Order: sequence, then structure tokens, then C-alpha cells
Amino acid sequence: MHPQRWGDPAAATVLPDAARGLVELAFGLSESPAATDVALPPVGTDEVVLEALRAAVGAQHVHVDDETRRLRTRGKSTPDLLRARVGDLVDAPDVVVRPGSHEEVAAVLALAVEHHVAVVPFGGGTCVTGGLAARRDGFAGLVSLDLVRLDRLLEVDEISMTATLEPGLRGPEAEALLAEHGLCLGHYPQSFQHASIGGFAATRSSGQSSAGYGRFDQMVVGLRVATPRGEWRLGSSPANAAGPDLRQLVLGSEGAFGVITAVTVRVRRLPEVKVYEGWRWSSFAEGATAMRTLVQSGMLPTVLRLSDEAETGLNLARPDAIGEESSGCLMIVGHEGTRAQVESRRAAVTEVLAGLGGTPLGEEPGRSWEHGRFQAPYLRDSMLDVGVLVETLETATFWSRADALYAAVREALERELGADGGSAIVLCHLSHVYETGCSLYFTVATSAGDDPLGRWGRAKAAANDAIVAQGASITHHHAVGTDHRPWLSAEIGDLGASVLRAVKADLDPTGVLNPGVLIP
Amino acid sequence: MHPQRWGDPAAATVLPDAARGLVELAFGLSESPAATDVALPPVGTDEVVLEALRAAVGAQHVHVDDETRRLRTRGKSTPDLLRARVGDLVDAPDVVVRPGSHEEVAAVLALAVEHHVAVVPFGGGTCVTGGLAARRDGFAGLVSLDLVRLDRLLEVDEISMTATLEPGLRGPEAEALLAEHGLCLGHYPQSFQHASIGGFAATRSSGQSSAGYGRFDQMVVGLRVATPRGEWRLGSSPANAAGPDLRQLVLGSEGAFGVITAVTVRVRRLPEVKVYEGWRWSSFAEGATAMRTLVQSGMLPTVLRLSDEAETGLNLARPDAIGEESSGCLMIVGHEGTRAQVESRRAAVTEVLAGLGGTPLGEEPGRSWEHGRFQAPYLRDSMLDVGVLVETLETATFWSRADALYAAVREALERELGADGGSAIVLCHLSHVYETGCSLYFTVATSAGDDPLGRWGRAKAAANDAIVAQGASITHHHAVGTDHRPWLSAEIGDLGASVLRAVKADLDPTGVLNPGVLIP
Repeated sequence: MHPQRWGDPAAATVLPDAARGLVELAFGLSESPAATDVALPPVGTDEVVLEALRAAVGAQHVHVDDETRRLRTRGKSTPDLLRARVGDLVDAPDVVVRPGSHEEVAAVLALAVEHHVAVVPFGGGTCVTGGLAARRDGFAGLVSLDLVRLDRLLEVDEISMTATLEPGLRGPEAEALLAEHGLCLGHYPQSFQHASIGGFAATRSSGQSSAGYGRFDQMVVGLRVATPRGEWRLGSSPANAAGPDLRQLVLGSEGAFGVITAVTVRVRRLPEVKVYEGWRWSSFAEGATAMRTLVQSGMLPTVLRLSDEAETGLNLARPDAIGEESSGCLMIVGHEGTRAQVESRRAAVTEVLAGLGGTPLGEEPGRSWEHGRFQAPYLRDSMLDVGVLVETLETATFWSRADALYAAVREALERELGADGGSAIVLCHLSHVYETGCSLYFTVATSAGDDPLGRWGRAKAAANDAIVAQGASITHHHAVGTDHRPWLSAEIGDLGASVLRAVKADLDPTGVLNPGVLIP
Repeated sequence: MHPQRWGDPAAATVLPDAARGLVELAFGLSESPAATDVALPPVGTDEVVLEALRAAVGAQHVHVDDETRRLRTRGKSTPDLLRARVGDLVDAPDVVVRPGSHEEVAAVLALAVEHHVAVVPFGGGTCVTGGLAARRDGFAGLVSLDLVRLDRLLEVDEISMTATLEPGLRGPEAEALLAEHGLCLGHYPQSFQHASIGGFAATRSSGQSSAGYGRFDQMVVGLRVATPRGEWRLGSSPANAAGPDLRQLVLGSEGAFGVITAVTVRVRRLPEVKVYEGWRWSSFAEGATAMRTLVQSGMLPTVLRLSDEAETGLNLARPDAIGEESSGCLMIVGHEGTRAQVESRRAAVTEVLAGLGGTPLGEEPGRSWEHGRFQAPYLRDSMLDVGVLVETLETATFWSRADALYAAVREALERELGADGGSAIVLCHLSHVYETGCSLYFTVATSAGDDPLGRWGRAKAAANDAIVAQGASITHHHAVGTDHRPWLSAEIGDLGASVLRAVKADLDPTGVLNPGVLIP
């Protein structure tokens, strides 16, 4: 059995020679752990329940075979990959169910309540925070609710510039359906090729073009949700004052309140022109100030991303150039829109960046970034193959606190990963900016050692502690899952946690939805 | 005793002759109802409670005199004004308490829980949806929690471009404090001169410059809330994926979940230049298409407002010119920012509007609008004085549904107000636009008749029914209060109402906070 890896096997990265040399220098190379041929836990769900599920969605859409169950076990964090490599599949669902409509989702939820079976909504399976590893204790089984058959573009409204999408659509599928109408969503997280519309909504996803197209939660204007207590529709208007905005309570609920069965999003016209270019800054601080100046002047490009000195040095923003020598800090600036929009915005942004001391590098670094923008997760597998653990984590804060947060997280990671005499490389980029602040995205490479799960677990905990101590967010766009859950109360307060539990108890009184995920 | 009226008596409007003639023609003129000299209900709160409140906030900040209580009775809707005119003060609070800090607010809430006294948070008192008319049945009294002493600018962060404001600050006070730092908020609802920061947050307010500065809920990045269960702080970062955005649950909670004691908002540099100008369109539909084109092209000016033919004809967008002849549909377009920003944006917007067939009217209509932008509520009192009831209501929808909504609401109002042979003028403007939709703001003038409260109540109910039938929002920025509460479940669903009740029960278990307001 091939160990569980990222994405499409055909697209897997071959570690470039330059990178291989660099990795060997830093960590030494070791053999990949042997892929263990392990059996899954037996199906723990009663035949009565399986029969009821078959009646609800059709027998051909209820799967108990090992391969289907294995591929819906956990997500794609490095700990997930490590557990899969050593044959730990204890979190495998008992059964994978593929409903074909809102009504079938509702029927599965009704059965789950009746038989007290836990339900894990499954979209693209790209979660990196343990959001698919629900607690199964106390439940009569665990159903992976695979939404892949909910893959339709239900409605396009070209006057309002909205589209209603089903949750199982993958990023490229959604964009392809919209492109037939000359429209796009513009949501390109690194997981774009595999992640789903429902997942984007349930996790408050943010994409690489968030500066121009906004976060996914800013795109959503309407939601249809199946809950154990029935259907819930939201979205009378773009914005209103009819009490709290309850859409913002469903967005980020990670399957714990209900299953999103349709999402109405704001769409845009397909851009005529896309131009991505590189700029070099002498320091991370200078580049960050330039980003802040742009956003606070209302002059945001579509893509804006700045690598720190270490990430620039390793060329991680450009996976095809990893290991090539580089200096200073690389900024990627992208403009999309009509030809006229791109020309005028590019001219204005160029004037500001040049005025602040940036060096234009032309379009080559931009093309290189665009080419490699979805490749980094593949690289992670290649590095694991040679005994190097690579993982990422991200946070967000206000501009005035970004320097201190950057230092504190780096320090925590380097301290913890160096504690046993190991070594670590910590890289960072800023890739989501707001008028008042930004996200910091860290990539960590370290020797896997004998106990990679333990090493990374301690490092991640130290980073989370540092983030919380800085008053920042424990996650900008990776969501909470089970991995961040112990730190959530520190961020939203005990009352925030209490409110989440109250909402959960109201919508899911028997607690069958994604138990143990999100809610502290 | 002078009947309760809008705002500052010195600024009261004298009905212009042209308007007076027009009103006489439409409705006839009648005498103002005699201002009745009425006594308030006796203070219904025990002396023990009053003593405890005095101990909590200082005796000089606990008021039981008639005038202080009367001025905190209900808000400023036309029904509120009508009830005050006929001496109906049954909703008067027993006592007005003015805490000076978060801790004192918390102490008052603790006393309210202990003695089961209802608490109505009071900011500027400009509510037009009955949000200050809490239910008192079953409570040992009703406290108006006047936040006027919480009037400090607590912190300015010029790097992050945020400021932390206390909730009792009125619009002009907040802007004046920020202006000392060269900053501004840019939030100018019609109630700006009297309404408070806490009220803006608690009601999801939206101002006349929302196109450029955003809705108030988009400005808020942090909140401090006093609840019966303790302090709640939110706002780790501009945006994140740490579960649902709970700030959006507090925004719009209308005092039912807690009392907002500090608000951290995104601020902007004071604009160097402000230019407001007029454009004429041959029809409302053409003007609306122009607005939609601008917002969907990412070319929003700071202010964008379009009056329909009827409103343009009456010049209600320009109160100093009411009654002057006018034709077509007037659009106000305002640009604020640096000189360079205003020049380039104005040029781009002008090109689009001219290309779509708009006729530029120069800056005079813009200046006239700016001069009168906060005056309309005064006019309402002058009209009531001559027996004409003027009231407003607003809704929001997606662009593709705006025409049908416009027709349905007009039809409902005209039908209901014409049912007893009375007459009505229904005017409308669009003053808040989004990529996917807009708000519709209606002004209604009708003969008051013998039973103005009954007439308006039936008309408002007919309008709300029409709005709900169209799937639109029952309120774009006036909030829910008690007046919209019967229609809220139709908009957010029974599950939405259930979730609000669950959150309420969690944060305010004994239900002392603004009982009967918002939550269905």
C-alpha cells in the first residue's frame, strides 16, 4: 500500500537536486520509512444502520471497503501523513456515505441521530488541523459523509453577480463551471486543486488572491444548511441589520453545527489580463511596510505576498527554483482585471513600491510563483521520503504587533525543535493583508528523528502558546479542527467557547456532528 | 411640556413655504395635537435596588427625576413621537443609571441579575425600531443604562490604523477625538449627530458614506462586552479562521447579549479633499444600473445615492430645496481622499457615468445634499406639527430582485394607506450599494388622520409582509428592536431564531438584558 500523500500521484514532486543537496547539508538524508501494509479497524457500525443508510442514499453510495475508508481517514497535515506512513488508521470511518442531494444529507443526519452515529462531513479531505478526526467514543459508529456527488452549479445570477454552488465541487470544477458564463470566484488557496466549496465555507478559507478577491467568508452571501433539527437557509441580502449576521456563525463551523448543502457566492467577471511580477526588498520589515502602505492607501493588487529573508534564500515561494541563490526579500505582486484596470492599478502600485525603495524584478519571478503556487504540499511528501519533516502553520495579527509575533513564533519553534539537539529551518511569508493587519505563514523544516510526531507536536504547542501569549489568532485560514482546539478558548474567551457549545447544543442536540472538532 | 422631538431644539426645521404649500395640497393642514402635560408612571423599583445602584456607580449618577426618565423613554420613530405627543409614557424607565467604566457596567448587570431588574442599554436614543421599549412584565423594575459617561478614546494605533472607542461617544465626539490624530471613522448615518458608537455597533449601523468607508460592522475589529456572566473580549486579528466570527454575533445583538463597553475600529486618514456632485438620470432604473456598474467594476465613490422620480421631484435629498421643481432622478456622487485619489477616482467614475447616459449637474446639488444630510428627521417633526405623518423604512436585496421589491413595497404602502380613503406619497432612494445588491430606503408621507398610530402600524405591517414575501431583509440598517421582531423569524428561519435564543440563554441566563427586543 502506498503511503497516504498529497493530491494527484502523477503530479508528485521530484526533489530538485539543489534542494536535495541543501536538505542533506542541513539534516542529513535518511531512508523513507517502509510503507507498512496494515489492515483497517473492522467496520464498527451495525448492519441495521448500514441498511438504513443504503435505503437513504442508494446501496451503490454506501462504501465499507478498506480503500474508500482509508482515503477518508484524517486529512493532510504532516502528522496525518506520518500516522498514515506508520499504518495508524484508528481514525478510519466505519462507512463512507455519498448523498446526492440536500434531502439525502438530511436523511443521513436523521439516521445518525436515531442510531447515535457520529458524522464527519468530507469535502476535499485537505484539512491540515485534524478536522476530519472526530471523536468516536460513545458513538455507534462513524460515518464519513462524502459530499462529492453534490457537484452542481445550481444558479447563476449575472445581474447580482452571484452563483449558487453545491459543496462537493472542487476548486477547479467550480471555476470551470463559472468560466462557462465568463465568471470566476477567484479563490485560490494552496489546496485549490483538491479542496471543496463546502470546505472553503466551513473553514473560513482564504486564498492566494485574497487581496483582490477577498476571503471566502467575504464572498458568501447565502447558505443552505442541513442540521439535525432541519433545514436552515440564510441570505436575504448582501448585508443588513436584521440582528447578528448568522452566516458568519455557519462560516467557520467546521461541520459541527450542520452540513452546508449549498453556498451562494459573489462572483466576478473572468479577468482579461493577469500579470504577476517580482519585487525585491532589502529586509522583511521594509517589504512589510510597503504592503501596509498599499493596503492602507486603498491600492491593493490582486496578489500580494512577501517572503522573509530565509524563505527568499530558499526560494520556497518558487518551488521550481528551490536552492538557487537569492537575497533580500522577494515580494510577488499580481494584478488581474480588465486591461485598463490592470494598467492603471499596476502603474499606481509601481509608483508606490518604487518610491519606498523596492527593486522591480520583472515578470519572471511572478511567472515562477504562478507555476508553482499549488506545488508546495507535494514537496512535503518528497522531503518526508528523505527523513525531513516539513510543516506549516499560520497566524494573524494587527500590523503593530506583527514584528513581535514573528520573533516569538520563530523563537518558540527554533527553541523547541533544537531542544533535543536537532536542527530546524523556520521560514515565513505574509500572504494575506488587511488595512489593520496581516497573516504570518510559517514553514518549518526539521529532521524527522525517531519520534517525528512527538517532535512536531511539542514544536506546534510551543508555537501556539507563543501566538496566544501575543494575543494573535491561532489560525488565519487553516481552521481549528482538533489540533487547534485546546487553544481556542484562549482566543475567543471562555464565554466564546460557551456560546459555541450553546449553539451546538441547539442545532445538534445529540452531538452527532463532527464530535470533538472545533468546539472547546 | 414640549412634545418629544428629534435632536437639538435649536436646529429644528421651519417648514419651507414651498413644502408647506405642497403638503397643504396633498393632505390639507391641521393643527398640531395639543402637547399634553402628563405625569410619568411612579418609580417602580425598590429603594433597596436604588441604594445598591447608587453604591455601584455613585449616587450622583442614579436618576429618578421625571425629565431624565422621560428623555430615555423609547426612541425616535414616528410612532415614538406620536406616543410622546399624546402623553403615553408607560415605557419610561424607573431609573436612569450612568456607569463610568466597564467595571461599573458589570456591577449594574450583577445587581440587575440579583434583583431581577430589566436593563436597557441607552446610547444616543435615536433608535427608530422600538429597541428601547423593553418588556417590563415580570421584572422588578426597568433600568435605563445610559452610557454617556463612557466617552473616551482609549487607544490609537496609527500603525494598525485602529482606535478603541468607548460606547457613549456620539458620532461628532468620536470624529473630533480622532481628528486630533489626523484620523477619521467616516461613519455618517442620518443620526450621526446624536447616535453613539455603542449603538452603531449594537445595531449594525450603516452610514451615508458606506460606499467608501464601509458599514460599521466592517469597521469593527475588536469588542469588549459586559455580560451577566462576565467580561467577553473579542478581536485577535483583522480576520481569521478560528471558528465562526463571534464579533459578528455581538454586532447586531441590540443589547440582548451584553453591553458593549469598548469598540476597536479601523480608522482612516482624514480626507484632504471632499467633492460631492450631482448627476441626473432619466429614470430610477437607469440610475440604478449605473450604480451597479460602478460597484461591480470596483470603482465605488465614497458616497453614492440615487433618488427615485418621486423623491427627486420633492427634492427630499436636499431638504433646503424641498418643493422646488425637479425632474428625472438625482444621483449624489461623493469622493473623499487625498487630492490625487479624488482626482483619479472622480475621472474614472465620471467616464463611466457619462458613458451610461448620466447628465452631470456639477457640485451645487452635492453641496446642497451635504448641507442637509442630517436634517430630514427635524422635518418629520415639522410635518407632524401640521398633521402630516412622515416615516421611513428600509430594506435590502440582491440587484436582480430590486425592481420587484421596489414595486411590492410601494404597492403595499399605497394600498394600505389608501384603504381608508387617505392619501400617501411614497418616495425611495438607494444609498448603500454592494457588488451583489443594494438597500432601498423609503420615505412615506401621509395624512395623520384620527388614528395615526393605527394607520402607520397597518402600513408598516403591510410593507414588512411584502418585504418578507420578496425574500428581502426587513431592515438594512435600522435594526430589529421590537417593531421588526415579529418578522425576524421569516428572514433568519426558525432555526436562526432558535440559535439567537440559545445564545441569549447562555450569556444572559435570567434574561434581564433588553427583554422583548430582537430575539423572536
